[in-house]
Amino acid sequence: MPALPDCIFCKIAAGEIPADVIFQDDRVMAFLDIRPVSKGHTLVIPKNHSASMMEADDDDLASLATHAKRVAHAVMRATGAAGFNLHVNTGAEAGQVVMHTHFHIIPRYSGDGLKLWPHLEIEPKTRAQMAEEIKKFF
Amino acid sequence: MPALPDCIFCKIAAGEIPADVIFQDDRVMAFLDIRPVSKGHTLVIPKNHSASMMEADDDDLASLATHAKRVAHAVMRATGAAGFNLHVNTGAEAGQVVMHTHFHIIPRYSGDGLKLWPHLEIEPKTRAQMAEEIKKFF
Repeated sequence: MPALPDCIFCKIAAGEIPADVIFQDDRVMAFLDIRPVSKGHTLVIPKNHSASMMEADDDDLASLATHAKRVAHAVMRATGAAGFNLHVNTGAEAGQVVMHTHFHIIPRYSGDGLKLWPHLEIEPKTRAQMAEEIKKFF
Repeated sequence: MPALPDCIFCKIAAGEIPADVIFQDDRVMAFLDIRPVSKGHTLVIPKNHSASMMEADDDDLASLATHAKRVAHAVMRATGAAGFNLHVNTGAEAGQVVMHTHFHIIPRYSGDGLKLWPHLEIEPKTRAQMAEEIKKFF
């Protein structure tokens, strides 16, 4: 999809808005998040516009995943991080703020104390029922 | 890489341990997480063993990303979720528990109150310096 005139990530991809770019090729760009969760927090975006992962085409998704690994490798080397989280927020209810597909690379450090999720307790029977429900939609 | 004898996800992929499977083909399998963060929390794994995303090959990563979209679509249809988070924990410090690459699909519901990350405040100058550091590793 062509760039959207009001999309901030399309403007960054086109070089019209500055960003701390760490990598780019014809299809993807990686730059530092301006609201980092941890030191070295980086975004990887497709240069093609898609509003979210649900609208991104398979070529862009494949490229994002393989480049996320490469970007994470560089980020970890540079920061000394011990691991990382890849996060993608899809939809406003999931915390997506910029409506252009983006993968977050969040470096993690020993004892950084980030708590990223709570757990539910769900009975196995309920889980089996849920699996049956979901399978109907393939 | 061949299946590892002590890897629980290799055993699930081989059908040796039961799971609530919602999709599989030659390369990937999707099944419900036994410790869900939200209703419909699903894992997508490569059938090939790799310890983490850093060791997964590009074909597996591409397949995980494109299938994650497809799985998320079915999960959202089945649960009525309004969005989802894709999370990948790489390394023990990032919360990885099972050392076989897996993508989490976490359905999100309006007002579910899940808080997935806090923010740091980092000055733009620090960010630019960080970008320069990371670029050295490409």
